[in-house]
Amino acid sequence: MKNTFGNSITLTLFGESHGEMIGAVIDGLAPGINIDKDYIASRLALRRPVGSISTPRKENDEFSLISGVFEGKTTGAPLCVIIPNENKNSGDYEKTRALARPGHADMTAHEKYHGFEDYRGGGHFSGRLTAPLVAAGAIVESALKEKGILIGTHIKRCAKISDRGFENIADDIKSLEYAPFPTLDTAAGERMQEAIIKAKESGDSVGGVLECAILGVPAGVGEPWFDGVESALARAVFGIPAVKGIEFGSGFDMSDMLGSEANDAFYAENGGIYTKTNNNGGVLGGITNGMPIIFSCAVKPTPSISKAQQTVDIFSKENASLSVFGRHDPAIVHRARAVVDAVAALVIGDLLAMRYGTDYLRGDK
Amino acid sequence: MKNTFGNSITLTLFGESHGEMIGAVIDGLAPGINIDKDYIASRLALRRPVGSISTPRKENDEFSLISGVFEGKTTGAPLCVIIPNENKNSGDYEKTRALARPGHADMTAHEKYHGFEDYRGGGHFSGRLTAPLVAAGAIVESALKEKGILIGTHIKRCAKISDRGFENIADDIKSLEYAPFPTLDTAAGERMQEAIIKAKESGDSVGGVLECAILGVPAGVGEPWFDGVESALARAVFGIPAVKGIEFGSGFDMSDMLGSEANDAFYAENGGIYTKTNNNGGVLGGITNGMPIIFSCAVKPTPSISKAQQTVDIFSKENASLSVFGRHDPAIVHRARAVVDAVAALVIGDLLAMRYGTDYLRGDK
Amino acid sequence: MKNTFGNSITLTLFGESHGEMIGAVIDGLAPGINIDKDYIASRLALRRPVGSISTPRKENDEFSLISGVFEGKTTGAPLCVIIPNENKNSGDYEKTRALARPGHADMTAHEKYHGFEDYRGGGHFSGRLTAPLVAAGAIVESALKEKGILIGTHIKRCAKISDRGFENIADDIKSLEYAPFPTLDTAAGERMQEAIIKAKESGDSVGGVLECAILGVPAGVGEPWFDGVESALARAVFGIPAVKGIEFGSGFDMSDMLGSEANDAFYAENGGIYTKTNNNGGVLGGITNGMPIIFSCAVKPTPSISKAQQTVDIFSKENASLSVFGRHDPAIVHRARAVVDAVAALVIGDLLAMRYGTDYLRGDK
Amino acid sequence: MKNTFGNSITLTLFGESHGEMIGAVIDGLAPGINIDKDYIASRLALRRPVGSISTPRKENDEFSLISGVFEGKTTGAPLCVIIPNENKNSGDYEKTRALARPGHADMTAHEKYHGFEDYRGGGHFSGRLTAPLVAAGAIVESALKEKGILIGTHIKRCAKISDRGFENIADDIKSLEYAPFPTLDTAAGERMQEAIIKAKESGDSVGGVLECAILGVPAGVGEPWFDGVESALARAVFGIPAVKGIEFGSGFDMSDMLGSEANDAFYAENGGIYTKTNNNGGVLGGITNGMPIIFSCAVKPTPSISKAQQTVDIFSKENASLSVFGRHDPAIVHRARAVVDAVAALVIGDLLAMRYGTDYLRGDK
Repeated sequence: MKNTFGNSITLTLFGESHGEMIGAVIDGLAPGINIDKDYIASRLALRRPVGSISTPRKENDEFSLISGVFEGKTTGAPLCVIIPNENKNSGDYEKTRALARPGHADMTAHEKYHGFEDYRGGGHFSGRLTAPLVAAGAIVESALKEKGILIGTHIKRCAKISDRGFENIADDIKSLEYAPFPTLDTAAGERMQEAIIKAKESGDSVGGVLECAILGVPAGVGEPWFDGVESALARAVFGIPAVKGIEFGSGFDMSDMLGSEANDAFYAENGGIYTKTNNNGGVLGGITNGMPIIFSCAVKPTPSISKAQQTVDIFSKENASLSVFGRHDPAIVHRARAVVDAVAALVIGDLLAMRYGTDYLRGDK
Repeated sequence: MKNTFGNSITLTLFGESHGEMIGAVIDGLAPGINIDKDYIASRLALRRPVGSISTPRKENDEFSLISGVFEGKTTGAPLCVIIPNENKNSGDYEKTRALARPGHADMTAHEKYHGFEDYRGGGHFSGRLTAPLVAAGAIVESALKEKGILIGTHIKRCAKISDRGFENIADDIKSLEYAPFPTLDTAAGERMQEAIIKAKESGDSVGGVLECAILGVPAGVGEPWFDGVESALARAVFGIPAVKGIEFGSGFDMSDMLGSEANDAFYAENGGIYTKTNNNGGVLGGITNGMPIIFSCAVKPTPSISKAQQTVDIFSKENASLSVFGRHDPAIVHRARAVVDAVAALVIGDLLAMRYGTDYLRGDK
Repeated sequence: MKNTFGNSITLTLFGESHGEMIGAVIDGLAPGINIDKDYIASRLALRRPVGSISTPRKENDEFSLISGVFEGKTTGAPLCVIIPNENKNSGDYEKTRALARPGHADMTAHEKYHGFEDYRGGGHFSGRLTAPLVAAGAIVESALKEKGILIGTHIKRCAKISDRGFENIADDIKSLEYAPFPTLDTAAGERMQEAIIKAKESGDSVGGVLECAILGVPAGVGEPWFDGVESALARAVFGIPAVKGIEFGSGFDMSDMLGSEANDAFYAENGGIYTKTNNNGGVLGGITNGMPIIFSCAVKPTPSISKAQQTVDIFSKENASLSVFGRHDPAIVHRARAVVDAVAALVIGDLLAMRYGTDYLRGDK
Repeated sequence: MKNTFGNSITLTLFGESHGEMIGAVIDGLAPGINIDKDYIASRLALRRPVGSISTPRKENDEFSLISGVFEGKTTGAPLCVIIPNENKNSGDYEKTRALARPGHADMTAHEKYHGFEDYRGGGHFSGRLTAPLVAAGAIVESALKEKGILIGTHIKRCAKISDRGFENIADDIKSLEYAPFPTLDTAAGERMQEAIIKAKESGDSVGGVLECAILGVPAGVGEPWFDGVESALARAVFGIPAVKGIEFGSGFDMSDMLGSEANDAFYAENGGIYTKTNNNGGVLGGITNGMPIIFSCAVKPTPSISKAQQTVDIFSKENASLSVFGRHDPAIVHRARAVVDAVAALVIGDLLAMRYGTDYLRGDK
């Protein structure tokens, strides 16, 4: 399956950072989903580098939906989105082609593809490819919204500074929707941005943790064992470059709790069943319990830094030193949140379509 | 795919805690792999409850390999392992059938299966089903060993007590192999066991963190994006009951580092390429770099506790109180390590077979 | 996926002709499907050798459903059916182990599995493995029947003798249901059986063509291109040993027609849309049109014959002569129909579950 | 998987006849495969309508490889090929939008997609989408050729006229390679073309049978049961529009043979094992035996004919009459052969990559 995930709704990614175009094919979308190009553009804008905390590489992301859409709605046939690559400075990369950038996939791509890989700007492994992921996800996000399912992600932590946690999740998601630097506590967000600029000035970079909430998924969704909500989300989220960890609900903190602290007590109210706490992040045995689905993922600091680093010439196998100049991000965590939202939407949309059938996200039902 | 994972080597799990038998089918195994029943039994023994820190439920795990084996070796055809369920006290569960146990999948299974689920002892969601996973994994583990690939897991943390980290990984793996309570620091292990007994005495339970190392996988294994080593391992590991988080290498800690701290510098030695640190846990861009693959997973405390808990009658939708009596584990983290080893072996074996072909694990090559 | 087919409902087959047990795992079944063991047994009986036109090998097919069933109904968890192998004369095969039987998979299994294959009685490639396929299919068949979907197969041709075609399909299916030698024209069936006995007496065997009708599938089921009804059925039907061809509706005969003859004219009646002819066998563009789904498959003559045949010693690579003695079928076409019915049910059940969700076949809806 | 087939090498198809672009993504290609754009163009030319026996719709098929290719070779990352749609007369279709064309997927697409489908020119079900299939297949065909594996297809039968069968297959494949109307007997080909023109003049169309030979695949390739060579090829070939049947080797004719006639006797020569006849078409038990793989597929007559046909208005559910004017093919069998070649290459390439690993088709090994 390689560059594809999903069962009923599948996404296949293609392209390279400095190739002609990047794109994705989403197959299995219900027919009749309304295509809101402005909404897609707004999600892409959130992923795009902005201001002094991002790379100066300009990415216009002029996406085209070249199939699967007719008269403004999905047809049910595979939808292909393409985005041409512009503003490429491929020359930057040719000079240092032999020097594997630490923290990047240059060396592993070379081992896998024997030197045939497009090495420019990370090639097929570039974060640039998350743009079509975001475009594809936006379509599912708006279809889910019609069903009352809301998704939002904030920067839980960045440069050792913490945001507050989710409180009123519906309101919190709303406040995050168009925020270019998505924190729930504005002051924390400002301090994070200052720290990013400081890292940039010293030729360095920072990472962070993103926390995502998915609201409104009914109980009983997901499959046991290896297609559980956690398995499906984790598989897709680890596809996002720089993600090195994922946890659901209280996650790693649960391993320090006692059972009596960790167990989410059930209670009944107005015919519904709820839990008092949500340490399990809305998932028990891989299956939703109707509470908000909550997960966090660790984003490592951007590997491209201008500080000198020790590395190896992958052809001559000799030791070397490298400073990665060019246009790079001192942090990507704020941009990655649009990717996390998108991936979450695609996974949840897929699980819902498996459970309720291929027409579930139809616009007119 | 539901109860199945893998592409070239696939594992399909079946059974319920109190059904007639549990088992698994492994398809895609190379022919000619030597079947060492004693080794399988020894792995099952590590998963089995032992002593005062485990449930007194006796599980003999008398496994049978009913297909795919001929004259002591794999044939290449699907291998089915079955384990009869014995020593079932189903009556324990019938009394409290309507009361969803907090932290368990009772409520979500009921939502998904509308009351048709086998509710006894967690049914299909029971940790009992990890026994055939361990048996299946043991076969792949021994085939990997023939190729110089070693896998070992220790309890990194339990009841807020930490083990030391991996140092000489090959030696550490060796020391863990037959340890019933697998820690690298014996004293830490003893303190953990004391804490488990203490939790048990107060009718409670504890969780922990398991850290797994995989040694000897060549560079260049794994697929980009959604079938990367991290995606594939995460998908399968979240299938293990009670796992709520996974991280690779330094994982969540990387999100607090600077790029200059997090990046693993490359160096060349004797024609090979290595990294000075291994924050990335042996994986860059989803593909192995030849360094040890390291991941940790969070195991929540066993949900079955005898302390009174608040819950709901899933039929009448009324609030209720529940104390889970019966035979339960005050901790499963020490038992779960055999499952983590098994799952890791199955995933790595699959990725190797994808890359090098279906004969890769053949015994006579 | 190898020994597995299906997307939402999947079947995985395991076992060898002379191994301990054979079986199958069906995953993705809706919960609450009624399990009628007598019905399963009756389908297995139709597959079993009977009388002078079949092998005298006695197969009792004492199946057990060891998982996925609780209180007489499916739970929604994977259902595993196992059937022990009895009445094995493995000695028969050891004598001629080196001599690849023409028309069988002995030689190709040896090339694929390098001599590690279980060679006795065709091993994993034996038609014996269709027994669990039939058992699994029977469960889906009875669930489909509850939804008004009927499946039936007759011997369209055998030993150059033709049966009449389907006329009133619902009645025809009914008449075939328990017929040990399923023809629509009794006299044709008798002549076929005489021809089979004659072939047997001369140490030879015959083949035939099976025609299957599936009634009651709503229009709009199936996926475009590679998961169309034809693709899905063909993939699974070619899994049945001895099948060498498949055609839908008028199939190969359509290639001799003019467009004006081949096109099925539409007409409307009582708000429904129908076709006057059914040359397309109920499928257009891979998707059902509401007419009966009709396909035929070619079954080659049983390869095991007692007449002397030229062959090769696969170890010494020397030419040799072989007469296959032992207990063999002079024809399997009448037994294979139960397998065709089963496979058709599994495929159609899967496509329906993809389209309408995993609960579609639930018994209580 | 819907619009995708394959396991190690997968193809995903997208686009509509009158949409902006059509295309395909091939994932899992080995790195280092030489891209010969002229060869791709020559295969597309064979699929393209030519002369008086085809539609006058001009298709330039100006394909672009927008990813997965670098410096003239595959990178190993997904290769996306796109082809813009030009020369569309969409107005033709709007007039008769409500009238389902008999033999086409208009009615079934409407049932499946509830009216949201792009109905113009068959939309996603159009034979037009086979163009990217051919382009994708051409890349694999040339990589297979480097390994000594040759593929060729001829028109075995058309308008009730038969071509001669394969004799010297290597020479026959060579003679077919660039033939616009691919028959082995030139005179038969001329008579077929006359019959096509005659059908066209009477506002009608004809079908035919294509026979494909695949030479040079080693023994032991394919998986048992549901991923056998026959299953895999059949699944993909039924994806080709208008295919209604497939048979391997002597196929349906085998059902009339005796076992002693049908069985292919083995013989040894120079250390190799061969069969005297090839009734099984190179496949036993789903696995190659080293003989040429031979299959035939039935192509129904083009459904678009100008003769008046009875049909239904799919909105009003009223009976109606329809003459399909516009630019149509009186036969597509000669064009479909390029598609059969392409699909065969993709399937065989996939099975080889499964067996021997993802690097098998690498150009430099």
